[in-house]
Amino acid sequence: MKLDFSVAVHSILYLDAHRPNKVSSRELAQSLNLNPVMIRNILSVLHKQGYLIGTVGKNGGYQLGKDLAAMNLGDLYDLTIPPTLSYARFITGPSKTDEQAGHSPIAANISETLTDLFTVADRQYRDYYHQFTMADLREDLHHHGYFLAREAHLES
Amino acid sequence: MKLDFSVAVHSILYLDAHRPNKVSSRELAQSLNLNPVMIRNILSVLHKQGYLIGTVGKNGGYQLGKDLAAMNLGDLYDLTIPPTLSYARFITGPSKTDEQAGHSPIAANISETLTDLFTVADRQYRDYYHQFTMADLREDLHHHGYFLAREAHLES
Repeated sequence: MKLDFSVAVHSILYLDAHRPNKVSSRELAQSLNLNPVMIRNILSVLHKQGYLIGTVGKNGGYQLGKDLAAMNLGDLYDLTIPPTLSYARFITGPSKTDEQAGHSPIAANISETLTDLFTVADRQYRDYYHQFTMADLREDLHHHGYFLAREAHLES
Repeated sequence: MKLDFSVAVHSILYLDAHRPNKVSSRELAQSLNLNPVMIRNILSVLHKQGYLIGTVGKNGGYQLGKDLAAMNLGDLYDLTIPPTLSYARFITGPSKTDEQAGHSPIAANISETLTDLFTVADRQYRDYYHQFTMADLREDLHHHGYFLAREAHLES
């Protein structure tokens, strides 16, 4: 879910701004205005992958495990929003288990064609995020317009 | 909804394969294995935009209004899946109407930063579809691998 990515990014920026303090998941949840359970699930994934260090519980708290410049935005996107493996629900035509005879050649083939189209589009979408690190995001946070200026520069 | 795009694309390919016949929305719905009401809504949009000609009703039916090569895939994508104007539900932090004091500078600024990031990413995603026409899609339908080969070519 796209919100998971936002939560991860927001949490990392918060921890970066509060270095070298330990920050509890409760404090993060308050700052993000979200349910602590949801935050904890995402923090747990980030912790497992080495983005965060620290422990939960009494006197617990999280700190960043590396610099923002060492955190690729595309890696975070892939981690929190795994690639869709199947586009089946977006594709028309009979299902593979549908034994009905007389399907048109289009219905028989469109699933593969649309899956390829969506898959390549999704890979290129993810490539966009992979161009950046969390340091770029922090840059835009402090000086809005970084991402828009970069897009304008690429198009000119 | 992404399914709307698939329905539009599938319907156009079906009409192309059945030139110069008129095809009823009922026949299309059967071939796409979908609810006729859903098909009709999308056919109505395509008709209004000139992709289809024809009439609904007794002796009615649709035909294509132009060649597949004159139908840009990105235009069809934008028509059936309009750009998301607001990413609000994917963004963390307090809402603008939230008067609570003491928000962190991150919470106050992240909405704009993430909206820019998602907006540019979405525009580049749509650019991918704009490279192709419906003739390319028909090409892949008859010779699977067109989109994958093109991606491999661009990366090499």
